[in-house]
Amino acid sequence: MPFELVNPKGLERPVGYAHVATVSGGKVVYVAGQAPFDEKGKVVGKGDFVMQFAQVIRNLKTAVEGVDGRPDQYAVLTIYITDLPAYLNNRKSLGDAYREVFGKHFPAITLVEVASLYNADCMVEISGIAVID
Amino acid sequence: MPFELVNPKGLERPVGYAHVATVSGGKVVYVAGQAPFDEKGKVVGKGDFVMQFAQVIRNLKTAVEGVDGRPDQYAVLTIYITDLPAYLNNRKSLGDAYREVFGKHFPAITLVEVASLYNADCMVEISGIAVID
Amino acid sequence: MPFELVNPKGLERPVGYAHVATVSGGKVVYVAGQAPFDEKGKVVGKGDFVMQFAQVIRNLKTAVEGVDGRPDQYAVLTIYITDLPAYLNNRKSLGDAYREVFGKHFPAITLVEVASLYNADCMVEISGIAVID
Repeated sequence: MPFELVNPKGLERPVGYAHVATVSGGKVVYVAGQAPFDEKGKVVGKGDFVMQFAQVIRNLKTAVEGVDGRPDQYAVLTIYITDLPAYLNNRKSLGDAYREVFGKHFPAITLVEVASLYNADCMVEISGIAVID
Repeated sequence: MPFELVNPKGLERPVGYAHVATVSGGKVVYVAGQAPFDEKGKVVGKGDFVMQFAQVIRNLKTAVEGVDGRPDQYAVLTIYITDLPAYLNNRKSLGDAYREVFGKHFPAITLVEVASLYNADCMVEISGIAVID
Repeated sequence: MPFELVNPKGLERPVGYAHVATVSGGKVVYVAGQAPFDEKGKVVGKGDFVMQFAQVIRNLKTAVEGVDGRPDQYAVLTIYITDLPAYLNNRKSLGDAYREVFGKHFPAITLVEVASLYNADCMVEISGIAVID
């Protein structure tokens, strides 16, 4: 595999992410921030954080498959959310939505709460870097 | 070209950005968040979002040209803004400023509204990844 | 060295960062956003921005050393903070903490103030990209 996920000793034990992804080859695929839009550009799950997250995860799948990759080839994700409590209060449902696409694959993930996303109805946006053989 | 912009089926039709950039070679150039500073470090366009955006776009050009690249070799941009309404209400002027440097080249773009940038007078900062032959 | 830091003419003279990092080889290492956790997952320096920053810097060292790299192989850092005044008012102490690990090595750095980080007690999180021979 052209990339490897590593969790160095001395860092907090990661749950649901990896600390480090090392890339030693392959084609690197940058996926722009995916918002909870359907293919017509309509927000899926207005006001519903879990539905929006599930749509974004599906869009990440669509994006990487569109260049002949697979979800488990994401090495890095950056998650931008606008409502941290909605994230923290729905961990189980969000985990279910995540695993439906990614299984037990956990890339190097950074999560931040921002003021707003481009579309005021969007509560989550995720960009990613995948590495394809 | 060592990178390609792709818009996979099943994702919203992108206007002014691409969903995916694939990189298969070349030298990868990371450009740190460019703020609306002139070369003396003075903010250009204090209080004027469009002027600031135009300066940042020019700085992105200066940055990539400084390593013998061209603006159309940017594969990825991440746009941090502090005033989403100022962005949404000036789409036409911002598009003009963008096209002056980038023409119709639209990389994989992520945009988020943050609380603040390093300099309180700055309303926009853009980091980028270019791929040079 | 497989990467080079460059400061193109025409851009503000950078202090404490570089404008551009060019990568022409090596293994690319993505380090997920490091928060001020110790290895047990406990926040170090609750309410103390400088202590948190110092811990994050040490974690970046631990992360890159965990894949046989060195701190001076970081090409890119993205700094997310939740309290810009705390950053601006502690420049000297933060510089000291930085130099203890990085010396005079200044990668391409982007800094933004966000609304919140994953853990409400965390005031700073830094992700990075290192390039290892």
